[in-house]
Order: sequence, then C-alpha cells, then structure tokens
Amino acid sequence: MTELEIMGANAKAASKSLRIATDEAKADALFSIAEHLRSNAAFILGENSLDVKDARINGMSESMVDRLLLTEERISGMAQGVIAVSRWPDPVGKVLEEYDRPNGLHIKKVSVPLGVIGIIFESRPNVTSDCAALCIRAGNAVILRGGKEAYRSNAAIAKVMRQALSESELPEDCVQLVSDTTRQSAAEMMSLTRYLDVLIPRGGAGLIRNVVDNAKVPVIETGAGNCHIYVDKAADINMAADIVFNAKTSRPSVCNAAEKLLIHKDIADNALPVIAARLRHGNVELHGDAASKSIFGDMKTATDEDWGREYIDLIMGVKIVDSVEDAINHIETYSTHHSDCIISEDKSAAEKFMAGVDSAAVYWNASTRFTDGGEMGLGAEIGISTQKLHARGPMGVNQLVTYKYELTGSGQIR
Amino acid sequence: MTELEIMGANAKAASKSLRIATDEAKADALFSIAEHLRSNAAFILGENSLDVKDARINGMSESMVDRLLLTEERISGMAQGVIAVSRWPDPVGKVLEEYDRPNGLHIKKVSVPLGVIGIIFESRPNVTSDCAALCIRAGNAVILRGGKEAYRSNAAIAKVMRQALSESELPEDCVQLVSDTTRQSAAEMMSLTRYLDVLIPRGGAGLIRNVVDNAKVPVIETGAGNCHIYVDKAADINMAADIVFNAKTSRPSVCNAAEKLLIHKDIADNALPVIAARLRHGNVELHGDAASKSIFGDMKTATDEDWGREYIDLIMGVKIVDSVEDAINHIETYSTHHSDCIISEDKSAAEKFMAGVDSAAVYWNASTRFTDGGEMGLGAEIGISTQKLHARGPMGVNQLVTYKYELTGSGQIR
Repeated sequence: MTELEIMGANAKAASKSLRIATDEAKADALFSIAEHLRSNAAFILGENSLDVKDARINGMSESMVDRLLLTEERISGMAQGVIAVSRWPDPVGKVLEEYDRPNGLHIKKVSVPLGVIGIIFESRPNVTSDCAALCIRAGNAVILRGGKEAYRSNAAIAKVMRQALSESELPEDCVQLVSDTTRQSAAEMMSLTRYLDVLIPRGGAGLIRNVVDNAKVPVIETGAGNCHIYVDKAADINMAADIVFNAKTSRPSVCNAAEKLLIHKDIADNALPVIAARLRHGNVELHGDAASKSIFGDMKTATDEDWGREYIDLIMGVKIVDSVEDAINHIETYSTHHSDCIISEDKSAAEKFMAGVDSAAVYWNASTRFTDGGEMGLGAEIGISTQKLHARGPMGVNQLVTYKYELTGSGQIR
Repeated sequence: MTELEIMGANAKAASKSLRIATDEAKADALFSIAEHLRSNAAFILGENSLDVKDARINGMSESMVDRLLLTEERISGMAQGVIAVSRWPDPVGKVLEEYDRPNGLHIKKVSVPLGVIGIIFESRPNVTSDCAALCIRAGNAVILRGGKEAYRSNAAIAKVMRQALSESELPEDCVQLVSDTTRQSAAEMMSLTRYLDVLIPRGGAGLIRNVVDNAKVPVIETGAGNCHIYVDKAADINMAADIVFNAKTSRPSVCNAAEKLLIHKDIADNALPVIAARLRHGNVELHGDAASKSIFGDMKTATDEDWGREYIDLIMGVKIVDSVEDAINHIETYSTHHSDCIISEDKSAAEKFMAGVDSAAVYWNASTRFTDGGEMGLGAEIGISTQKLHARGPMGVNQLVTYKYELTGSGQIR
C-alpha cells in the first residue's frame, strides 16, 4: 500500500468512531486541540521560521511570505477559531424527515457525516487547523495535503493536533497530513475513491481547475468570484457609491470582492462620475467600455477579456447597460455565479434581477462582501461553493454532512 | 461550435425561462407531453420497430431486445409516468430558511433548479420521457444522450416531446437529444462544464464508472447495489426467510435486490437451513463460505471475489459472522452503500447496526427492495444515488434542485 492508501484506511477507521462520537466528545477534542496549539506555539513558530527562511532564500515575494508567516498572535487566532467551531451545534443526528408509509414501514431521514474529506490547499498554514476543526465538528476524518513551502509549519500544526486527539476520546487519525508534497500525491488523492468521500481544493484558480478536471473523487468547487454590481436607473447614487467602494476596496484579494460595475444608461451621466471618482480616489484602476469612458475619461479601455476576469486586485471593469435585462444577460454570460448585486429603489427591478441571476448569493442594496460564513450567520467556513451540487455559497459545519434513510419494519416485503 | 455546444447554449437559454416558469406552466407542459406521447404512439412504435429489427439482425439477445421493445401498453405507461410527475408539487421557490442579521441584512435561502442536466443512458427508450419529465418538473433543461441501438426510438420520443413543448408556455429546448451516439459525444458531454450543471449516468456499472472517472462536470453516481441482509442471533427466523427470499428473488436484476446473506453463528444452525432451502427452491444459486457449507451443503464455494460482487442475478453469497460488529465490518468493507438490512428482535443490536452501517438506506426488519422513490413516498426517481454529495438514495423531483441565497439590505457595507 502507498502512504496515501494507508492514510486512507486509517482515516476510514477513524471516521467510524467519529460517526458515532457524541457532541461532547467532538467539542472536547476541539477544545483540547486549541489548548495544544497555544501551549505549543513556540514549537510551531520554530518550524515555521524554517519554512520562511527557505522561502526567502528561494526568492518568494514578501506578500507571499506574509501568507506563510506565523506569529504568536496568528497562532492564538487559529486557536480561537478552533474554539469557535467547537461551540457550533453538532450538525449530526438531526432528524430531517420522519414518516410512516401505508404498509407500516417507518422512515427516518437523519443527518450523518460525509465520512472522509480530502483537502488540497496552498500556502497558508492556518488552513491546517481551520479545516481540521470544521471537519471534526461535523464528524468527518480529514486528510490534508498542503503545499511544499509550508510543509514544516503544516506538519508541526498537524503533529500538535494529533497529540491533542490522542489525549481525547477521538482517534488521532481524525487528522492526517500527507508528507509527499509533489504533484504525484495530489494526483493520487484525486483518484482515492476507495477512501475519500469528498475532495475540496482550497487555493488559486489553477489548483481548483486541476482538481475539478482530474478528480475521480466527488469535488466541491470553491472560490472564483467574478462578482458584479449593477447600478439600476432607480438607484440611490450615494448608496451605490458606498457599496461599490466597499465591495471593491475593503479587501480586493478575496473572492467576494466586486470585480465589475454595470450602470444603467439612464443614470450613468449622474452616477458614474460620483462612483468612479470615489474608486479612483481609492487607487482603483478602471477598465471601461467606450460608453463609460465617454462619461469618465480616467479609465483604461476594457477588452473582451476583461469581462470574464477575476482581478483579485484594485482593478474594476465598468460597462454601461441598457436595462436590467441587459445587466442580467451580461452577468449570466460572465459571472462565476458567486455573488452579484443590484442597487435600486425599484422593487420590481430588484425582484427581476434576483430571480434572473443564477448565483449562489444575489444581493439587493448591500455589499457583496457579506458572502462569508461568519457574516451570514453560518459560522466558519471551509470555502465558498460555486457549484450547484450539495451546497452553494459558504460551506460551514452544517454543509459538511449528508443524510441517510433509516427504515424500520416488522417484516414488510415487496 | 459543435452540435453539443449549440445544444448546451440552447439548453442554457431554455433553463432561464424554466427557472422562472410557474408551477402551472410546468405541469401543463408535462400534461401536454403525456397527451402527445399517447396520440403519437403509432409514429413512435414505427420508429421503434426499425430499432428492434436492426437489433435482431445484429444478434442482440432477446432479453436485451425486450428492454428495447416498445408496445402500445408501454407507451401508455410512459405517458402515465409523465402525468404522475406533473402532479408532484413544484420543488422550486420554497423558502428553506429566512432570517435577519444584526446589521439588518435580510437573508432568504430559496430552492432553485439545478439548471441544465445531462443524462447519458443505455438502451431502454422510456428513460427519454421519464428523465425529461423529472427534469422539467424541477425546472431544469435536459440534454439526453442515449445508446445507438435505441436511437430512432429515442429520437421519435424526443421529437414528440418537443412538439408538445412548442405548443406549451415552455421552450422546446427544455428537452434535447444528442444525435451523435458515438463515444465521442459522451466524452464531449463529460467536459461540457460551460453548459452542464450536473451529469447523471444511467446504465450499467461500466458506463457509470467511465462517467465518474472522466467527467469534469459534477456527476451524481447512481446504481450499483451490493446489498446485504444480516440475520442477527435474535432474528425471527420465519421473518428472515420471508425477507431474504423477497429481497433476492422478487426482481433480481435491480439495484435494491439483496446480494449477500450474513448470518450470526449462534442462529446459523437453525436459520440457515430454512432460509437456504427457500432460496434454492426459488432457483437461487448460493455461494457460501466454509462455515455455511458445513451447515447447508447445496452451495458453491464463495471466493474472495464474491464479497464485492453485484450479481444482478439469481445468485446470493452466504457467510457466517461472529457478531453484529463482525457483520458491520464486513458490510463496511464490501457494501456499495446502497441498502443494507438487519433482521433482529433485539433493539440494541438493530440500533448498533443502523448507526454503524454507512449506507444510503439502512433497514431493520424489512426488505431492501423498498429503496425506491415510489415505495419511499418520494415519487418517481431518476436513479438511486450511492454517493454522499448532494443526495443519497432515491433522486426524485425534490432532489433535482439546489438553493440560492437572496440578501436584501438598505445600503449595508462591511
């Protein structure tokens, strides 16, 4: 057996204990993980410093080094995150439906864990504890496969978590980290259908595309957000400026940041100068179509390639549209179906937009930045699903379960 | 653009109308489809007779020809099936959750169609109308790709359905049939991520494996059922014999038929002769382990390969186990996680079994043959899901939807 097959078998065995573990056992184990993370901070920081040193020797940019870097404070944040997840209500064992059939068969539909979850992720080491905590809270064993640059940091965090688990009622194999960080191990995980119930990639567009295209294990696709804000002809211009500015600039590197601004032609002359000036003041580079540029000159020319792009940067595409229908059509053509917004005081336009745009989150008069487990009251999340199977939007603890049917009879035959 | 890309774009356009179609419009269109199937029976039968003639020339076995063959009665059955689906309550537009956040943001989680569903299926032509009806009822456009042998039958049914749709409020492109029945079109469908939201294979194990392994589009895996019945030491032996006989013999070719019989060692001497004699009387070939054979001699010797096999035939594997835990371990090792059953008068054994066996349907004292949309009160189904993402067990109309979040604010920013 390969390393991954052995880990798969271990995870499967651990998931059998986890599946029937009590709420308290899972919460206690998570609390213990948080304590161990805090008390072993020096060890984790030591290993992390080796990763950071190598990254600088290898010429990693300082912004990437910052993603890799752990500090006392960041480890404390990781521990706090684990504690918050430990307090989330147990999503397992909920009776979703219960009924009797005419033949007396009693049917119960009950929530159960997914089983074994594989996660392939890139550089941030905090993903190790964040994802492990969410998986355990929902009764799942997890196999983590992080990037090479963060391997010693991830291994230190995993070691500390397993130590905590070995002192808890749960098996330490609830959390395992793959030691092979080559492409080979990622490819093998994608084919590990015998042991993995689900595979979740966390990282850049390239990683996610690779996993979606090549995995035989069912995948939850997370991430890409080419999010739109459409300013309707009946918009409150000041509200529009506030929302667009917030959605674009408050954190341009995340998937719920707005990337495109669509403005109704009837309000463009009044609205665009206000909104665009505000964005330029915030150092946002604007890529406009011809109609936008004729109203506000301080823009680069948008090309066709702009409309499908997720900039993840202080850049925004701008386009004048003829109607709410035109806005919907543009969004349906180019959106990644993550989060899209209409700003309008006209209820019927808003309803048309929200019914017509087929995205995980559709907004009326609020910033797209709220598509986030915490902000939506769904707790910490493992990612934002942009596919339609299983879960859409924030994938929190409640989305890391499935269900089974329990059928009780007294000898019924068909 | 290829034929499939054009069909994909057409389906996407149709799905936009379908997404906002009323309950009545969808029900009326289905009713019209049923009427057209009935009134065009002669045309469909004519095309079917050409498929059947060619199949016989090509040496197709009569049991396979029977799957392909349509009759007046079978077409009437198809129409009745469509009408039953038309009467199922609309699963779209249900408010699943609704709440306000502390900042005043109002959040609604609403059920919506999946969008465009691709179905790759094998010879039975009734799949064309069955699947199309389920997809439309749940607001989805469908692209069907059937087998070569049934092409003229499928094309005739699709033509009649599209004719009915063209006279309804829904676009005719709600239903499309791929004319290319080569491997090439199946392969292209598996990569049609731009247009297909979900792909569902319907057919034999080879087809399903091929789609699961190669599709880039999210897949719902249906089908394989290596179903177990465990006769506990506290079983009612007569009940056990009735259930095992029913589960094995009532329809051995379907996925919810039982394939394996496990018997507790403490009851084997009494129970096995009764159950096995009953099965042999029903012409069931038994493949037993050494312990079973020493109790009931009229068995072939089971090999290791038997335990993982889905016979889909009048064959049953038999094994003596030491305990309920032993039964659970065996099932967890070999089951396809479709349907597994315990027969026992001991509640604690039954509870242990139902918690420990991780299958879509777990039974206590009833035949596994009830894992069926109709029997479980879930309506007609497109297949039985054996994966854990999205839906497990029968995939009826209610499982052919997803959800979206609608967030309404008054200028909230983050």
